[in-house]
Amino acid sequence: MTSGPVPTYDDVLAAERRIRPYVHRTPVLTSEYFDTLSGARLFFKCENLQKTGAFKARGAVNAVFSLPEAQAAKGVATHSSGNHGQALCYAARRRGIPATVVMPHTAPAAKKAAVRAYGGTIVECAPSMDAREETLNRELARTGADLVHPYADARVIAGQGTCAKELIEDCGPLDALIAPIGGGGLISGTCLTIAAIAPGVSVYGAEPARADDALRSLKAGHIITENAPETIADGLKASLKDLTWHFISRHVTDIFTATEEEIVEAMLLVWERMKLVIEPSSAVTVAAVLKNRAAFSGVRVGVILSGGNVDLDRLPWQ
Amino acid sequence: MTSGPVPTYDDVLAAERRIRPYVHRTPVLTSEYFDTLSGARLFFKCENLQKTGAFKARGAVNAVFSLPEAQAAKGVATHSSGNHGQALCYAARRRGIPATVVMPHTAPAAKKAAVRAYGGTIVECAPSMDAREETLNRELARTGADLVHPYADARVIAGQGTCAKELIEDCGPLDALIAPIGGGGLISGTCLTIAAIAPGVSVYGAEPARADDALRSLKAGHIITENAPETIADGLKASLKDLTWHFISRHVTDIFTATEEEIVEAMLLVWERMKLVIEPSSAVTVAAVLKNRAAFSGVRVGVILSGGNVDLDRLPWQ
Repeated sequence: MTSGPVPTYDDVLAAERRIRPYVHRTPVLTSEYFDTLSGARLFFKCENLQKTGAFKARGAVNAVFSLPEAQAAKGVATHSSGNHGQALCYAARRRGIPATVVMPHTAPAAKKAAVRAYGGTIVECAPSMDAREETLNRELARTGADLVHPYADARVIAGQGTCAKELIEDCGPLDALIAPIGGGGLISGTCLTIAAIAPGVSVYGAEPARADDALRSLKAGHIITENAPETIADGLKASLKDLTWHFISRHVTDIFTATEEEIVEAMLLVWERMKLVIEPSSAVTVAAVLKNRAAFSGVRVGVILSGGNVDLDRLPWQ
Repeated sequence: MTSGPVPTYDDVLAAERRIRPYVHRTPVLTSEYFDTLSGARLFFKCENLQKTGAFKARGAVNAVFSLPEAQAAKGVATHSSGNHGQALCYAARRRGIPATVVMPHTAPAAKKAAVRAYGGTIVECAPSMDAREETLNRELARTGADLVHPYADARVIAGQGTCAKELIEDCGPLDALIAPIGGGGLISGTCLTIAAIAPGVSVYGAEPARADDALRSLKAGHIITENAPETIADGLKASLKDLTWHFISRHVTDIFTATEEEIVEAMLLVWERMKLVIEPSSAVTVAAVLKNRAAFSGVRVGVILSGGNVDLDRLPWQ
């Protein structure tokens, strides 16, 4: 049972054509240092260098540019004030349509500024999940805007699936691929693509130990939701939905977790040695690879660095 | 008059073949944000993502791997404790020969650790230029090691020239190209390549206003040396030598300067918007482009981001 139509690989191919003018084909980098440290051969897909600083641009652009003209004119809306919210505003501005982001009035000024900088309209609400959903529903009813969910949306998942396609094309055959899991949009798109073009590749997930709902779900055989987890990897707090569980339950080989300390340490190492600004949510995959040498030794592994949006005035190692 | 043989474009081509197994072909990135801010179309050549975190790996590897076997066995030496010193140790280790770096005993522990991490041997001396040269000469006499100067060396300049070649190949026709100037090795190699394969491209230099010896030299028509300048762009403190002046005086269209504040601001913007860790010396070119809109408006400009070696515990905006 899913919460919407299940996207197919044809949807990924259509997404790729649709989003090409609006997103970067991000580079794949290698690092002798991390190869030595991990014992693996790592291929880092740099979605931190993506438009809006995160892979989210892929899914958001695909959703916005697949809207029929009449619907598009009414705009799009979401309740994500993080990377998806910014990506949606970016996509909407590129199409020349309005984007509304519902966020608590307590949200950090930096997040509000980022949404506005991408041309989005903020509608504030009380700082609770109920208030957020209620306010969003009211906005949707009032404007007729299209809801673009951050991950439980076939268009978004198909867009995220373009990332693994580029990675495979650019680095050749892989044995494994690892991506972070929050709500599961990125790894769902990854599973979709890998199952279609490289079914022998094992897909692994990575989660903060403090928000390990996907791992617990995989063990239990059904979705276990998270209740307001606290982790520095703030992009990975969301819980799975039916549509992402559909992919994760079928295609993910295993899920590894990392502690807060391991996440910060891996993040610092990537900044120092690879000269890449990555956010904590991206460092979770790196930490997972480094601490599971047995699983990855001698293996060609694609590592998706999902984003690079951090507050440079408040770095976690300071 | 030069301080050694003047390298030719054939030397760049030979360097390219020689260094290929040991250096990255670094990506060329674009940024809508910086295009809008500058009015230009910018192509960033990311040498911060190069082996050892700086373009210096190109020249050092070329020098080390062009040594005849008997000479190579005696090792290499330098008195640069910065990016060149690390790059030379990296190159020597890849060839399996010893590398000696002469540095003052007052040098920061981090720099000593970096040299050791790349397998180099440190010979300490008193903290003066005279002591450094004297100690280096004694080491050269004692070991028979080959001196690899950070920039007044034909092999080093030919190696640095491979950077502009890749840039032109990857981003297509350019109108202009800008690189930082310290001792002038990078821009000399750039001039060499551009004169050979794209003579219509204007080559610009960028310097800290506090270490503007190349600009003053260009105006005076002869080398003016710097006397221990103080700037945050610590890779750009060296003075020109005859061999680099040879290229700069013939091929550089103009040199732009940036204040300390402009350098820090440009550096922060690149971290924030491009998610790249660059060092202050790299930010000088970005600052120069941003403050000289008139020169670059509507123009396709290659911008060499020369390196990314910074102390992440001491960032200049904090």
